[in-house]
Amino acid sequence: MGRSRRLLKSLASEERALSRSRKIDRDAPDAPRADLDPADWDAFAEDAHRGLDLMIDYLRGVRQRKVWQPAPEAVRARFRAALPQKGKPLAGLIDEFEQFMLPYANGNLHPLFMGWVHGAGTPVGMVADMLAAGLNANCGGRDHIAIEVEKEIALWLAEAFGFSPESSGVFVTGTSMANLVAAVVARTKTLGEPVRRGGLRAAERQLVAYASQEAHGSIERALEIAGIGSAFLRRIRVDAARRMDAQALGAAIAKDRAEGLLPFFVVGSAGTVNTGAIDALDALADLSADEGLWFHVDGAFGALCVLSPELKPLVKGIERADSIALDFHKWLHVPYDAGFFLCRHPQVHRETFMSTAAYLARAPRGLAAADIWPCDLGPDLSRGFRALKTWFTFQAYGAERLGAVIARTCRVARHLEGLIAASTVFELCSRARLNIVCFGVKGDSSGELNREIVMDLHESGLAAPSTTRLDGRPVIRAAIVNHRTAEADMEVFVAAAEASAARLRAGRRAP
Amino acid sequence: MGRSRRLLKSLASEERALSRSRKIDRDAPDAPRADLDPADWDAFAEDAHRGLDLMIDYLRGVRQRKVWQPAPEAVRARFRAALPQKGKPLAGLIDEFEQFMLPYANGNLHPLFMGWVHGAGTPVGMVADMLAAGLNANCGGRDHIAIEVEKEIALWLAEAFGFSPESSGVFVTGTSMANLVAAVVARTKTLGEPVRRGGLRAAERQLVAYASQEAHGSIERALEIAGIGSAFLRRIRVDAARRMDAQALGAAIAKDRAEGLLPFFVVGSAGTVNTGAIDALDALADLSADEGLWFHVDGAFGALCVLSPELKPLVKGIERADSIALDFHKWLHVPYDAGFFLCRHPQVHRETFMSTAAYLARAPRGLAAADIWPCDLGPDLSRGFRALKTWFTFQAYGAERLGAVIARTCRVARHLEGLIAASTVFELCSRARLNIVCFGVKGDSSGELNREIVMDLHESGLAAPSTTRLDGRPVIRAAIVNHRTAEADMEVFVAAAEASAARLRAGRRAP
Repeated sequence: MGRSRRLLKSLASEERALSRSRKIDRDAPDAPRADLDPADWDAFAEDAHRGLDLMIDYLRGVRQRKVWQPAPEAVRARFRAALPQKGKPLAGLIDEFEQFMLPYANGNLHPLFMGWVHGAGTPVGMVADMLAAGLNANCGGRDHIAIEVEKEIALWLAEAFGFSPESSGVFVTGTSMANLVAAVVARTKTLGEPVRRGGLRAAERQLVAYASQEAHGSIERALEIAGIGSAFLRRIRVDAARRMDAQALGAAIAKDRAEGLLPFFVVGSAGTVNTGAIDALDALADLSADEGLWFHVDGAFGALCVLSPELKPLVKGIERADSIALDFHKWLHVPYDAGFFLCRHPQVHRETFMSTAAYLARAPRGLAAADIWPCDLGPDLSRGFRALKTWFTFQAYGAERLGAVIARTCRVARHLEGLIAASTVFELCSRARLNIVCFGVKGDSSGELNREIVMDLHESGLAAPSTTRLDGRPVIRAAIVNHRTAEADMEVFVAAAEASAARLRAGRRAP
Repeated sequence: MGRSRRLLKSLASEERALSRSRKIDRDAPDAPRADLDPADWDAFAEDAHRGLDLMIDYLRGVRQRKVWQPAPEAVRARFRAALPQKGKPLAGLIDEFEQFMLPYANGNLHPLFMGWVHGAGTPVGMVADMLAAGLNANCGGRDHIAIEVEKEIALWLAEAFGFSPESSGVFVTGTSMANLVAAVVARTKTLGEPVRRGGLRAAERQLVAYASQEAHGSIERALEIAGIGSAFLRRIRVDAARRMDAQALGAAIAKDRAEGLLPFFVVGSAGTVNTGAIDALDALADLSADEGLWFHVDGAFGALCVLSPELKPLVKGIERADSIALDFHKWLHVPYDAGFFLCRHPQVHRETFMSTAAYLARAPRGLAAADIWPCDLGPDLSRGFRALKTWFTFQAYGAERLGAVIARTCRVARHLEGLIAASTVFELCSRARLNIVCFGVKGDSSGELNREIVMDLHESGLAAPSTTRLDGRPVIRAAIVNHRTAEADMEVFVAAAEASAARLRAGRRAP
């Protein structure tokens, strides 16, 4: 049989097989489906639309509910069941979600949630994440559109931060992971690519990193995971505005060098978790450049100040960073989780993570084409399409409005500061440069009453601040992140906190 | 003013403030919203429901489309735009998604996608992820229901794997990350908790890990990130079934000990990426116990064989592992991403990651209550609610049906094997123990034609296998993971591959 006859025969056989395959859906419509698609798509659609309506109603009514309430033990006990062997109808599961999960949520959607630095989500983000979940792209690599969308987000960030468009970027879960990626990339830069194979014990000297006393604990964790050791994170003292003391940083570097250690990594904070302090990034950039150290900015929420013309000057110097870690799920309210690592040095970034595994080989054409895959830029291989919810958020609101919403939270925080300053019960414990206000009961030197008030407010369902320690004392901390939080909410918050203080002094808890 | 008068006054003031706050939504309904909620909820709901219908139609028609097609350059160029300053209506963004993203997707939903080991998602998972995105829980910690749901998933896995209910578990992005967590926890077990502070250079001896030649590249990457160095991963030779040679493992451990190194970590593979091989887990468990090494199972997809009574015997021994890494987004079709790390030793697991940062302090009551938070068990602090889509998947389908779907993919793979064995064009290159079939063109010793066929099939849109290397030769690899893939699809695939081989031999590419 000649080549062309063989080809024709093959093509005819292909055509027949394809036609059979396309009919598989329609064969034996009454047989139980072997796949996991719905037996009845219309019934499924009805359930799905009801689920969507449920969430829209929930989001619409978020202000009318308690900020938080604890799940009763009977509800918790429901979630200690055995592995379900048989399936249940989707409608009933949505009911269970409505009845047993929705009421006992995190609280971070509510305008009076001010605990920790949580984003509030948006209805737009929910729709985008639904689309992403349906599309179900694996963004580890290969040539498909989700990868292009992720690259566009990197481009947008490069533009926003004044980085070159050649900069590399990758989505990760959050800034904890982005800080780890930064430490590992900086390690490659300092010790060279052979550190991947040889490990840290092959290095001649011990690496040392630097961050302020107020920097986030994820820096320690990054150094721990990376095997460098958190004892080699120098916690540099801060000034009155809780910014890293650049002179002390210089001295620490000099001391470590003198002792034969190898400084490699300076972490500036753009918005500390405790008080929203922003290091003098320009000064840190200067010093890092002089010393030949990698300058990383932990900008978990504060980096996005660049979107607000009013706040952008506060993070001056961030455009000189070697890398930036930030979260879209905080001040940009992209649904959890969506962290990002942006890097000025694409080459060393790739050299840190790229693999030569055969099943990841690139092809000149087809689905395995494309040069750089996201799995070359971070620790993940399987990865969801975090870029889509971020893309929808930027596109639906525009950078200007997102920046304005960020700036507004800072104004609300200043309003809260004013109320606290005027309060007969409370005193300010830090100055809000951004959106975080720390305060405490006047005269509560142990901070015990502050802790009690926070628990009491949680249990009352009226407001949810958190606690932290400032100069050793537990204080009440309100992080105004939520786009729904208005100035008038601060009156409620302070009134509720004052009532709580009065109740607790009278020996009573939240009713 | 006495205590009770002060209290009454406070409560009255609280009541007034709260009433004002609850009305914020209704004040000035015509003013532009300061928050990111829709100005017109009904219009938003209409767009959201249209988005949902779009995805339902997309999922319903998945079999009728091409598996994959490359995005034209004009489409890619759309995703290189400047940062959008102004917002756009949601409806138009959904149109853009429909027009410029949906057609250029990854392909993994299509029954003829067999490239890599990708899950196919489910409509149920999409609904669950929409609910999660609306709820927008941060599952790093605190006392809310999402944490209970995550703990229930750990319980279910403990039951499925025969672990104690006291075992600890944590969601991560995927098995790459779960393998990193495993390496880091095993490092703590071996070197003690002080390794967190002191780092690896303080350890007396170099750690060494062991995995088969066929084990996944993420093990190397985990050792690199953890600073141990991938040169200290011993790649142990495999037998004819591509399982780790236990005798060679024992010899390697002995040699390393003799050389003063510190063996600590044995990784068994339950389903290798190249051929689906499963190590003799019982033998590895014995050896690890004898040697006092941490026995980790990389069960990215294969671990879930335990859900099928027919396949469960293949992973015998997994119940003796110290830890297991697996993905729900592969064989369980939970939308990307949803990896899990299950650990038999909750204490050392916690000791590895727990932090004492003030802003993470636990409270006796309120939102900051609860003992163990997920951030004590892994590298992430901000974390999405991956547990919900996993919970919905187990609840909607039941473990029995999920196990049956897994077993069915293996039957489809055996059917493909039969077709290849009967083919005049192709020959089998590995035996499918699970769901992966590797084959190549008879006589194509360089494997060049195999690579060309895979690209050609991608470009034709008919089928998407991938390539890998077996014994140095590029081969065609079909991983049958998709719940939609039926036996009849294999006829299409083989006919298409044979037609492609004939076309390419005739010097032509996909039409």
